Order: sequence, then C-alpha cells, then structure tokens
Amino acid sequence: MISIGILGAGQLGQMLGQAATSLSTDGTQDIKCIFYDQAKDPCATSVGKVYRDIQEFNQAANIFTYEFENIEQSILQQLASDKKLFPPLEALQIASARYQEKSYFSKLGIDTAKWLPLNNEQDLQDAAGQIGLPFLVKSSRMGYDGKGQIHIKSEDELQQATKDLAKVFSKQQDDKDKHECPYIAEQIINFQREISLLAARDHKGNVVHYPVVENVHRKGILYSSSAPATIDPAHQQLCHEWMENLLVSLSYVGLLTLELFDTGDTLLANEMAPRVHNSGHWTIEGAETSQFANHIRAVAGLLLGSTTACGWSKMYNLVGSTKSIPKQAKTSGHVHIYGKSERLGRKLGHITFRADSKEELDVLCSCMDNHKNFIL
Amino acid sequence: MISIGILGAGQLGQMLGQAATSLSTDGTQDIKCIFYDQAKDPCATSVGKVYRDIQEFNQAANIFTYEFENIEQSILQQLASDKKLFPPLEALQIASARYQEKSYFSKLGIDTAKWLPLNNEQDLQDAAGQIGLPFLVKSSRMGYDGKGQIHIKSEDELQQATKDLAKVFSKQQDDKDKHECPYIAEQIINFQREISLLAARDHKGNVVHYPVVENVHRKGILYSSSAPATIDPAHQQLCHEWMENLLVSLSYVGLLTLELFDTGDTLLANEMAPRVHNSGHWTIEGAETSQFANHIRAVAGLLLGSTTACGWSKMYNLVGSTKSIPKQAKTSGHVHIYGKSERLGRKLGHITFRADSKEELDVLCSCMDNHKNFIL
Repeated sequence: MISIGILGAGQLGQMLGQAATSLSTDGTQDIKCIFYDQAKDPCATSVGKVYRDIQEFNQAANIFTYEFENIEQSILQQLASDKKLFPPLEALQIASARYQEKSYFSKLGIDTAKWLPLNNEQDLQDAAGQIGLPFLVKSSRMGYDGKGQIHIKSEDELQQATKDLAKVFSKQQDDKDKHECPYIAEQIINFQREISLLAARDHKGNVVHYPVVENVHRKGILYSSSAPATIDPAHQQLCHEWMENLLVSLSYVGLLTLELFDTGDTLLANEMAPRVHNSGHWTIEGAETSQFANHIRAVAGLLLGSTTACGWSKMYNLVGSTKSIPKQAKTSGHVHIYGKSERLGRKLGHITFRADSKEELDVLCSCMDNHKNFIL
Repeated sequence: MISIGILGAGQLGQMLGQAATSLSTDGTQDIKCIFYDQAKDPCATSVGKVYRDIQEFNQAANIFTYEFENIEQSILQQLASDKKLFPPLEALQIASARYQEKSYFSKLGIDTAKWLPLNNEQDLQDAAGQIGLPFLVKSSRMGYDGKGQIHIKSEDELQQATKDLAKVFSKQQDDKDKHECPYIAEQIINFQREISLLAARDHKGNVVHYPVVENVHRKGILYSSSAPATIDPAHQQLCHEWMENLLVSLSYVGLLTLELFDTGDTLLANEMAPRVHNSGHWTIEGAETSQFANHIRAVAGLLLGSTTACGWSKMYNLVGSTKSIPKQAKTSGHVHIYGKSERLGRKLGHITFRADSKEELDVLCSCMDNHKNFIL
C-alpha cells in the first residue's frame, strides 16, 4: 500500500485523488491518497480522508506531495527531512518567491520579460528608467490570479506607488535576508498569446512532455485552455530545453508547469508552478495519461504514462457560478464540478470538450459561445 | 447526495465506483457507491464501503443496481419492491435463464442460432434430429465463460449425454414451472467473428449506442475486444434495431450488452447481459464517456454522455496472472489490475491500448504479441 499524503484538499487534490483511485499500473493497485487541509469541508473529502492535525497526517502517509504553494515552512521542512516530499522543497521555495524564480530562470538561460528586484524607493525610481513606463510592480510572494500587482502607467502613479511601498521597503531593510526581496518591477509584454508547458519527471530522471497548451485569461483568471496548440518547431524545441533544464536542475520528481508569453518572435517565461495546474485539466480526457495520473505515478515511483493528446481539447473554467451550463456541454463535454460553495472569482469547476479534429471541436465548443460570463 | 447500492463488489463494481468518483455532471457532485458482497476483501473495497449485511446495505443507498447476474431472488425482490432497482428485475430474470432469453429474443424478432428447449430425454433425441450433429447442450442457468456446456459431436456422445442428464430431467418433470427449462440444445454456428453491442438508456427513454465491438475468445474466456469494429451499414442498422427493441421492451434503464455471432451473411444474437460488460472496458479510455460512467448516469437520473470513440482501441484481458506485463503496455497502454488473488482462469485485470489510427494501434499492440499466455 502506497499512501500519498497531499498538502491541500482543494480541486487539484480532489483530481489527484480521483486519478489515484483509478491507477493500477505495475500491479501497484493500492494507492491511497490522504489530505491535509484546514478548510471546512474541502473538495477532496469525496476521495480521501482529510486531516486537520499535521502530526496525524504525517503518520498516515509514506510519501508526500502538495497541491498549492503557500504552505507553512515548518510543515514542509518536517515532511522534507523526515520523509519523502515530491516535488522537492527547493522547487516550491523558488516558485513561491518571484524574485528567486526570475533569478533561477536567468541562471538557467530561460528568457523572461525585463525585470528588476525592488528593495527600496530608489530601486523603484530606477526601474522606471531602465524598464520604462508602463511597467508592473509585483509582490514577490503570495501573488496569484493577478493579485498583488500594481500597474504603473504614469509618473503620478509611480510617485504614488513609491509612497505606498515605502513602509514595506523600510521594514525590509531591517531584514538581512537578501533572498526576501519584497517586490519586483517587470516589463509589460505585448504578447500574442499565453502558453503553458506541462511535463513530468520520475525518480529515475525519465521525462514526459505534454503538448503545448494555449491559455486565455479573463479578469486575471484562466478562462480557457486549448491543446495541442500550434507552435513552430524552433519554439517547440526551446520549450523542451527550458523545461528539461528546470527539471534536471531541480532534481524534480512530479509534474511541473511553466507559463510563457509568446510575442510571436520570442518566448518569455512568466512563472512556474511545481504542481498540477489548471491549464492541464484538459489532460483528464484529452491526453492518454492525465497530468494528475502522471504526477501520482512520478511521486509513487511508477512508470510515467504516455502524454499523447487524444485529438484536440478545450477546457473552460467555471468561475463564480456553475449555473446554466448548456445541455450540450453536459452530454458532449465533460463537466467537472468541484463541490465548492459559490463565491465571486472562485474556481468552481471546469468543462472539457474533446474531438478528433479542430473543426469538430469548434462545433462542440460553440455551445459555450453565449457563456462568456462563466467568469463571475 | 445520491447513494448507489451495487450488488456485487467485483471488478465491475470497482470500475463503476471509480466512474462515480469522477462523475459530476449537472453539478450532482455527490454520487457515492456502496456495495453488497459476501466475498472476502472484494475489489471494490478500494472505492466504497462493502456491506455483508443486506439490511444495512438496503438502508445505506437510495438507488440500486447490480454488477453480476446470479443474485438471490429474495434479495432482488425486496430491493425492486421497496426501492429503485435498475436495470429492471425483468431484464435480470430473462438474462439469467437461457430458455427465457432465447424465447424473448424470438418474441422481439431478434435472430438467434437454431435452438430447442430440453425438458426430457426425448427432447434431446429430437434435438439431434432437428438441429443435426454436432450441437451444444447448455444449462439454462448459471452458465458463463463456456461453463455448463456439453458439445455433442457423435451418436455415442448423444447417448452418454442423455444418460447424464436423465436425473436432471426427472427432477424437472416434478416441477410445474414451465419457465424452468433446465437445458437447451443449440446449433453450433460457424461464425466469422463475435461482436458485442453496448447501449445505455436513461429514465426518459433516451438511448446512446457505443460503436460495435469485435471480441476474440480463448479457452472460452474473452481474450481481446477491439472497437470500433468495421460493420456493413445494413448490419449496423440491424444492431441498433435489435438493441432498441430490447431496451424499449424491457423499459430498460442502465447499460445493456448484447453478444452476437457474425457469420458474414447474418447476425445471430447469442446472449445479453443486463449490466456493464467485459467487452466494454475499452470505453474507459477509448470512448468519450465510459460504459461505467453512462451506467451510473442512467441509474442516477443524469443525462447520458457521448459514446463517440476516441480513435481506435483494443483491450486485452489478463487472466490467471498479471506477471510479465510488457513495459510498453505500462507506458503506452492503460493497465488495470483489479487487486484479486491469482487463480487459474480468473480475470485479474486488463490492458487497453488507444491510438488515433488503426495502424498506430497495431504498433502499440505489437508488444502484446508474445503474451498470448495472458489467458492462464
């Protein structure tokens, strides 16, 4: 019996648990997932026991993984030192701080938008000079779905931001830890599209890549993901190189996601997530082995499964409401409802359509045309 | 919360439970499966609670279904009268007795091999005259995977069978119930291939058909299933007609399987199974919605899902042993191990391969060429 302890019992945990339930490669039939989460009645309750006590959770599993990034350091260090935590702690630490993440990308030769660390007011003023207006100020930690960002478009906004951030900077200057840069300044990219890469690496270093995914965001939240996305061969090769650099350099085990901007001419890495990712939900029906199954396989020491796409897929997020899902989506698509209570801006479910050709996929997806307000 | 009580906790129950775990169409996120089984440590333990007490089981669910045919009448009648049992009891009763099944096929205009009821020694002698040697004697009840059959090839074997069966016949003659014909005689069909049809019907009478499946048996046990099978349009139409006749006539709800012989010129119905079926396991990866998901959807009153095939699929059964599964099968195929102890002739798992073309499928399946002894 392999008991996988998952930190976090949200929808990603739920889908990992569902994948584990059906997983039996190698005859390792008994894979069980348990969860740690403080939330009341979290999604994954439907697929495995959710612990609120970290010690009990720790004792109930022999391998550990996580489904979200913002986990207390003390918890992580205990799991990482005592037992087996995958993906490795380093990946999580890097991905949790934009400053470290961007530095790591640069170190590995992975291109990014122009960026600068912001440690004080002067840095912010300098950034305006070096990057030019407009630019973004992003908090190094705790930012997701467009939260924790300031869009600086004018000299006035620059001065206002300098004032607003002065407090944080003065606090930071007392801190000796240079890794904890509180903000970064980042060039705004006029991208043609956003893409994401998903790949899994096992304990032996074998790597499988999913086809490139094209993502559309609305109101800062992922609206849809389409795969396989068309990509020119040179960019495709670059994607694989960057991904393998990251996986090898991090001694990675599990599924890794890398989000990129495609400007048409160049690819620029935006951020990575050391976990299964919303832009990979289409793989449940649209790929030979889902991102969830491959993450579990990697973590549990099983052989990785084929990442070949089964035709063409498109996933739509259901945000804020799961009402009025078209009947066509229920019969010809794959509706996933996570079982969370409705709340503005909350990811409550998703729908994936799959077809043997792009043309057929467009026909299937046409039922979603009038449902642009699935992002509430 | 819909709680589905499944009679039987074998691999079919296990896969129904797995489908239910991932099912959330219509926002009916909470579908739970529980099981009734007297076996020690049955497969479905991994996906839901298995009850050994029928009263407790009865109280723990609000809808009932079954995954095998040989269920005590008293149990069934209680569930059927008290609560909701799907597929309907009549379908189960007909499918459990070859005599009733063949009669029912005839009544609905569904062609079968020539057959005769055997109530006494004279019937057996007459059958030899009317059908001609060789022919099969099949027990009306409890026969599966080729068990309970006598192949009568000569006059000597006919006389031996007449002697052997005399006891059963004499016992039977005391029985007034004409429905309980103990044996039937059946013409041996020189078929070109065996095919099976799977379809699901919901509470409102909507029907979805899966593509035709081509099956290969070895040692009387299903060895492989391939789908979609090629079939000429006239036969395809006949398949749909026969299936719809059965579904409508039985007021069926759930998944129904019909096995047929294809002689090249004609189709002949062999038997039906009022449940999910081994020849439909490929649908887990090879169809938009699996037979298990559609059975659960039908039974639970949800909309049925698309039965469109995702490319081409082939499933191989693992019988008697799950050892030496080729690595290629573990990475490019989908290995399912049910978690049963090894025993000669026992279905322990299956492997499904799926590809976008028949040619690619053949390449994938070539790793199974040297594994004809997966039927042990």
